[in-house]
Amino acid sequence: MYDVYEIRKDFPVLEKIIYLDSGATTQTPKPAVLAMNDFFYNYAANYGRGAHQLSIQATNAFEDAREIIADFLNAPPEKMIMTKNTTDSINIVANGFDFQEGDEIITTVVEHHSNFVPWLRQKEKGVQVKVADIDVEGFVNPDQIDEMITDKTKMIAIGHISNVFGSIQNIEKIIQIARKNNIPILIDGAQSAGHMALDLKALDCDYFAAAGHKGLLGPQGTGILYIKNPETIQPTVLGGGTTSDADACSYALKSSPECFEAGTPNLPGVIGLGAAVEYLQKIGVEAVEAHDNHLARETAKRLKEINSTHGNNNTNNRNTDDNRITVYGPDNRAGLVSFNIEGLTPHTVAMRLDKYNICVRSGYHCAIPGQKALGIDGSVRASFGLYNTEEEVDTFINAVSEIADSVQR
Amino acid sequence: MYDVYEIRKDFPVLEKIIYLDSGATTQTPKPAVLAMNDFFYNYAANYGRGAHQLSIQATNAFEDAREIIADFLNAPPEKMIMTKNTTDSINIVANGFDFQEGDEIITTVVEHHSNFVPWLRQKEKGVQVKVADIDVEGFVNPDQIDEMITDKTKMIAIGHISNVFGSIQNIEKIIQIARKNNIPILIDGAQSAGHMALDLKALDCDYFAAAGHKGLLGPQGTGILYIKNPETIQPTVLGGGTTSDADACSYALKSSPECFEAGTPNLPGVIGLGAAVEYLQKIGVEAVEAHDNHLARETAKRLKEINSTHGNNNTNNRNTDDNRITVYGPDNRAGLVSFNIEGLTPHTVAMRLDKYNICVRSGYHCAIPGQKALGIDGSVRASFGLYNTEEEVDTFINAVSEIADSVQR
Repeated sequence: MYDVYEIRKDFPVLEKIIYLDSGATTQTPKPAVLAMNDFFYNYAANYGRGAHQLSIQATNAFEDAREIIADFLNAPPEKMIMTKNTTDSINIVANGFDFQEGDEIITTVVEHHSNFVPWLRQKEKGVQVKVADIDVEGFVNPDQIDEMITDKTKMIAIGHISNVFGSIQNIEKIIQIARKNNIPILIDGAQSAGHMALDLKALDCDYFAAAGHKGLLGPQGTGILYIKNPETIQPTVLGGGTTSDADACSYALKSSPECFEAGTPNLPGVIGLGAAVEYLQKIGVEAVEAHDNHLARETAKRLKEINSTHGNNNTNNRNTDDNRITVYGPDNRAGLVSFNIEGLTPHTVAMRLDKYNICVRSGYHCAIPGQKALGIDGSVRASFGLYNTEEEVDTFINAVSEIADSVQR
Repeated sequence: MYDVYEIRKDFPVLEKIIYLDSGATTQTPKPAVLAMNDFFYNYAANYGRGAHQLSIQATNAFEDAREIIADFLNAPPEKMIMTKNTTDSINIVANGFDFQEGDEIITTVVEHHSNFVPWLRQKEKGVQVKVADIDVEGFVNPDQIDEMITDKTKMIAIGHISNVFGSIQNIEKIIQIARKNNIPILIDGAQSAGHMALDLKALDCDYFAAAGHKGLLGPQGTGILYIKNPETIQPTVLGGGTTSDADACSYALKSSPECFEAGTPNLPGVIGLGAAVEYLQKIGVEAVEAHDNHLARETAKRLKEINSTHGNNNTNNRNTDDNRITVYGPDNRAGLVSFNIEGLTPHTVAMRLDKYNICVRSGYHCAIPGQKALGIDGSVRASFGLYNTEEEVDTFINAVSEIADSVQR
């Protein structure tokens, strides 16, 4: 039984705010914060670099967290690299893959900048970046990806869920296409990891990048990168921890995951992330997915209904069938809704909602090309988490309705 | 008045352990942990990416922390980049500097791998890495650096304090030499930041890298990088936060520091680091420096004295002037002491000390070339922090003495 009111007790900030910005970062539950406190107060030390008891305890806690996270996504721990965020994860692949002049990379116009700009940067090496389109709901057509492939294609990089439209891409089919053509494929799971059940072994992608601080409920400053074949990526950040030997002329690197985790790791962050994933597992990610998607779909539906149900505001003298609110994305969306109110900038809408103590995001959501492609000049985004309630949706809908009613036309 | 017993109240773990591994990571004081808890429980949100009140509060707290850290080192905040650790900081420079085939980099044999391997990696571009020597105490001779400079030298990279020998390099003179020859110079301040007063404006180096989790007392997962002229470094990790505009073909980057801080930053970590630096400032970094150095020098002196004062152990039948304990580094050392006990591996000594609840580090300390250069096959390192006491030194010396006495010869 999914008890959202019980869950909310672990997120104190929700007592004072309606938080609809989980697409940017979720809140972190108390047990994860307490796990970090335990580290700081009882066994803070550096990773595997001492024989002493604190170092051993800290190292074990870090590796336990890695195992929890890897298990949750059904991947071997040694292929699950702890990074700073999704951006860091994708850059490790983009900068470490052996691209040559003339190679081609396929990505899509709907990507977050984190899964777009690192590939564009490879143009400096003479690599061509081919960009797949989206339809009006934010979906990529797998057949188009198939048609874009040539014998020079060396990478396909695609986001699992659009952070603007909430469209869930058919990555299973796109991965199949990549496999069939023997092309490495990276999945940007920033908006899917922790928001839906994932099995990386079954998915069979080559690289999977995600944030620790979104669906996985961990602290900011954590991210993950799964690499199926670690030898396909040359580590580009080197130093302490990556190096097994060095002399004045040369160095030798350790194997995965150490070779990708240079310097002192974010021990408290990863330990907190491990505790957060354990917390999520207890609730059940399928239940969270159903919860988030239900709230988002309900919200989208009711936002559209505002268009036909208002008009009783005499000062504005509206028709009952106007479309002052535009909602983007498909009906079968994941847990987020982007929209606009005619006559108001996204930023203004967000500022007005803030006066109702409702936190939403506004602007391009670090995904300019996709919105420009559909002629959208930014939007307001409400994104949901396991702790949001139907009552919060009511309050949000009433607030948007009032804000829309206030526009003079 | 420096009251170490008052300070210790903010570090609960010290009640159960003698922590002599601050060179790897210091403990983090309670006020810094509480600042992170405050973030998680009261205003967790993503950086500058929403108009709502939590996001604004989180962004302000992050920027306040940056300002505290920048002020502490006397640098402009917009040139103080928040990174993951020292290694991350140095790699940003090594990977982002425009090295060309034939260029030369000067570094030294005493560097931590973090300030060595990233430069060696530039050999792939046809860059030559020239490695300065050290004397028997771990000092680099500035005159040698001067002599190594040619018209092809494009970078000098040197650590401020050796993490093995505790030797404090004459970086003022080496920076002068760099300035005179118009060569960019990077200082690896991993062992100096927070352990001694630093004024980056007066130092006038081009790049200064340090960890947040060592002398600055912040959490693991934080680091800093000062870049005097941000346009000299091309950001190599791109994505959300770094990008001001993008279309299907190109992108535009923001200015410093944003262009170097891709993706969601480690908000709790940096906020904790800011609180830690405030804590350090209240105590006074000069007082901490005097305290740490005194304990280390006292420890080195007493370790050497063990050689002449034991010999009352009949079963071992030793001379009174043997040298079973070898201490490395100069008399005017910074707050750490590396040593070996004849007949025992460094690892064995560390394990034995652990039975006394004393935490020290053993091995190469991620600095293999410098130890090999002096014919040292690893060592035991005791490193001190603001919270260590004279009584802890007593206990440590007695423990080492007992361990040395136990060796059959």
